Amino acid sequence: MFPENILEQARDVLARCDAAGLMLATAESCTGGLIAGALTEIPGASEVVDRGFVVYANNAKTKLLNVRASVIMRFGAVSEEVARAMAEGALKNSMADIAVSCTGIA
Amino acid sequence: MFPENILEQARDVLARCDAAGLMLATAESCTGGLIAGALTEIPGASEVVDRGFVVYANNAKTKLLNVRASVIMRFGAVSEEVARAMAEGALKNSMADIAVSCTGIA
Repeated sequence: MFPENILEQARDVLARCDAAGLMLATAESCTGGLIAGALTEIPGASEVVDRGFVVYANNAKTKLLNVRASVIMRFGAVSEEVARAMAEGALKNSMADIAVSCTGIA
Repeated sequence: MFPENILEQARDVLARCDAAGLMLATAESCTGGLIAGALTEIPGASEVVDRGFVVYANNAKTKLLNVRASVIMRFGAVSEEVARAMAEGALKNSMADIAVSCTGIA
């Protein structure tokens, strides 16, 4: 379903994580789960993908990923500060060693 | 990216939820975020989609969705009992009124 260039990148991420013994978590807003979806399309993903958070609503960002409401208010939901806080929250609330986050306007 | 028949169903779900004033959460294992991804492809999804959980690892099912480890052990991660517990956990850990869950072998 995903274009081959996306799957190619997903394979590459998984292979690198696997080689380094790292688990990965995702924290997605505007992509709505598609990053996790692309990664888990690849056979063997369960060795690397720990969990994913789809935090569409601001309340979800706050409750699931500890993104402070004041940070969302000050910088806006679509900001580097919120993206960073989402990734940090994903690390804190998972068994993963690295996290990827994404926020934007679709 | 999604096939038209999937988008059609996603549109239908969102329209029905919107008409009924319901918020929705997803809890996905083998689909890895693609249900949330399909729903959020539709314009206006943010009115309906509250959040999504991609719970690939058993620990994620337990920690994020309160699926009891004993239930996973007894029935297996791919079972109606676990799917039901995932949906119930998604309701409990979100602002959503309804939840969809999915577990299986990809």
